[in-house]
Amino acid sequence: MIRLIDDNDPKAFSLLKQLYPHSGNAFIIGITGSPGVGKSTLIDALIFEFRKRDRKIAVIAVDPTSPFSGGAILGDRLRMQRHAADEKVFIRSMASRGQKGGLSRATKDATIVLSAMGYEIIIIETVGAGQAEFDIASVAHSTGIVTIPGTGDGIQAVKAGILEIGDIFIVNKSDRPDAESSVLELKMMLSMRNFNTPGDRFEICPQTPKWAPIVVKTIAQNGTGVKELADTFLSHFDFMKKNTILDFKKKELERIYFNSLLKDLALEKIFLFMKESNDFKEALNKIESGSMDPITAAENVVNIMMARKKLRKT
Amino acid sequence: MIRLIDDNDPKAFSLLKQLYPHSGNAFIIGITGSPGVGKSTLIDALIFEFRKRDRKIAVIAVDPTSPFSGGAILGDRLRMQRHAADEKVFIRSMASRGQKGGLSRATKDATIVLSAMGYEIIIIETVGAGQAEFDIASVAHSTGIVTIPGTGDGIQAVKAGILEIGDIFIVNKSDRPDAESSVLELKMMLSMRNFNTPGDRFEICPQTPKWAPIVVKTIAQNGTGVKELADTFLSHFDFMKKNTILDFKKKELERIYFNSLLKDLALEKIFLFMKESNDFKEALNKIESGSMDPITAAENVVNIMMARKKLRKT
Repeated sequence: MIRLIDDNDPKAFSLLKQLYPHSGNAFIIGITGSPGVGKSTLIDALIFEFRKRDRKIAVIAVDPTSPFSGGAILGDRLRMQRHAADEKVFIRSMASRGQKGGLSRATKDATIVLSAMGYEIIIIETVGAGQAEFDIASVAHSTGIVTIPGTGDGIQAVKAGILEIGDIFIVNKSDRPDAESSVLELKMMLSMRNFNTPGDRFEICPQTPKWAPIVVKTIAQNGTGVKELADTFLSHFDFMKKNTILDFKKKELERIYFNSLLKDLALEKIFLFMKESNDFKEALNKIESGSMDPITAAENVVNIMMARKKLRKT
Repeated sequence: MIRLIDDNDPKAFSLLKQLYPHSGNAFIIGITGSPGVGKSTLIDALIFEFRKRDRKIAVIAVDPTSPFSGGAILGDRLRMQRHAADEKVFIRSMASRGQKGGLSRATKDATIVLSAMGYEIIIIETVGAGQAEFDIASVAHSTGIVTIPGTGDGIQAVKAGILEIGDIFIVNKSDRPDAESSVLELKMMLSMRNFNTPGDRFEICPQTPKWAPIVVKTIAQNGTGVKELADTFLSHFDFMKKNTILDFKKKELERIYFNSLLKDLALEKIFLFMKESNDFKEALNKIESGSMDPITAAENVVNIMMARKKLRKT
């Protein structure tokens, strides 16, 4: 089913519709961070922690730079292979292959399938965040940002708006000498975090308690801090559940999903419709002969189409 | 102007229309490859080579994983800073920030501006290729694929379809021990390259001579092979010019650009139109109350809209 989604197969859509009512119970965790911070090793360790708690867990590794880094993702999957025998663990990578609506929608689709299949925790691993093609915040309930000590990631994070989207901040490889100062720097920046930002789009009303972002130190390689990290994610989930934030968030994610579906479906149908029109063919001919530039031509076709629609509307 | 494009500023569109007739003379080179193969150092060296030939040169570094790797790009720009005093060199990075039509369109827009400004060679550097969000082949006239010895990139390249999109293959860091075998492996794979693939969409007719992809060895750090590489790019340009391939390619790129503009403009106007409709508002309410899932809701809104249009059409 996920392969159908990945392949843009038309069958996927109707299957998705059937599965949708059975989805919605999973806790969706986003894990993001620069390349090389150890996201995969960390997730590998997290799988163990969640399996100890007998949760059925799925991991989707989303790669917006594919196909080039296909190798890296493949490596990651091999690294996680030791869970292959555990039927309560599912690991899949998704690459950007021109799926309708892009990776955000394909990933959302995949979470619906996995959730309907009874996976209780779905981890989405990605290098992208925020404004990039893949918007982790449009899919995940809880977002963990992975950093490592002494890379000056802090200032970059502020610039990139990363600080605003994280619920849990993970300083991995924390056996490095400057781990403590990195934690302090992060905590200081988080204390100054501006709460009137898109990161707080899930604020419900002034009375709703706010989740104070937590900084967790880990050494993914040997498992240090990973138990605490798993607990922190679960306590964020409980916090959201208790304070009706989760329901609100789910509705918000549903609206985002609806909008992206609407765009995809409308674009698909209208573009097909447009391509069959004479205006479109004439425009192509004019470009071909060099009598019109593509910018003016595109503008003309759309204007004619919209004008016709309005005429018929009145 | 490029900042306006990057910021999705509505002013950009009309300015672009004015500039378009003055663009079209630049030679657009795409340079792509995995992270760490030395693309920036290589391009830095290429700038020198082209400047020796007194060409006015621009570099656009396209980063599909932004905002996270903003740091790396910034570093690259600093590395190229030594050209800052040279007014015939322009360097700019572009990140994925939700531009209309995505990075491909924003980058294409930028090449129009730079070409109109008289830049004769425009190098587009990116980590993505082929099927990813940013499609280098929809913008560049000539594409160089950078690899390094002994990374097993070869097999990955075949899998990823990279082999098909490259005109020039660069084995950088070729002072490494296994450089020669990497070159041979590449050449062997290229000799088996299937010419009936999307990579050959620019084939005009059976009589048109085909460009045989060339493998060039470089050591970007000390400039070895970079003169030859610059010559190879220019000879590919001459080859395309002489065999009318360039004109054909430019038309093809214009059609691609027209289609992406059309999609953007249509989506923009139609989505605005749709959002104001009662069908849209009703659908949102049904999602809110939980009486309809977002998939069915989106499908309904688009179907109603298309049905109305058809009714009016008949």
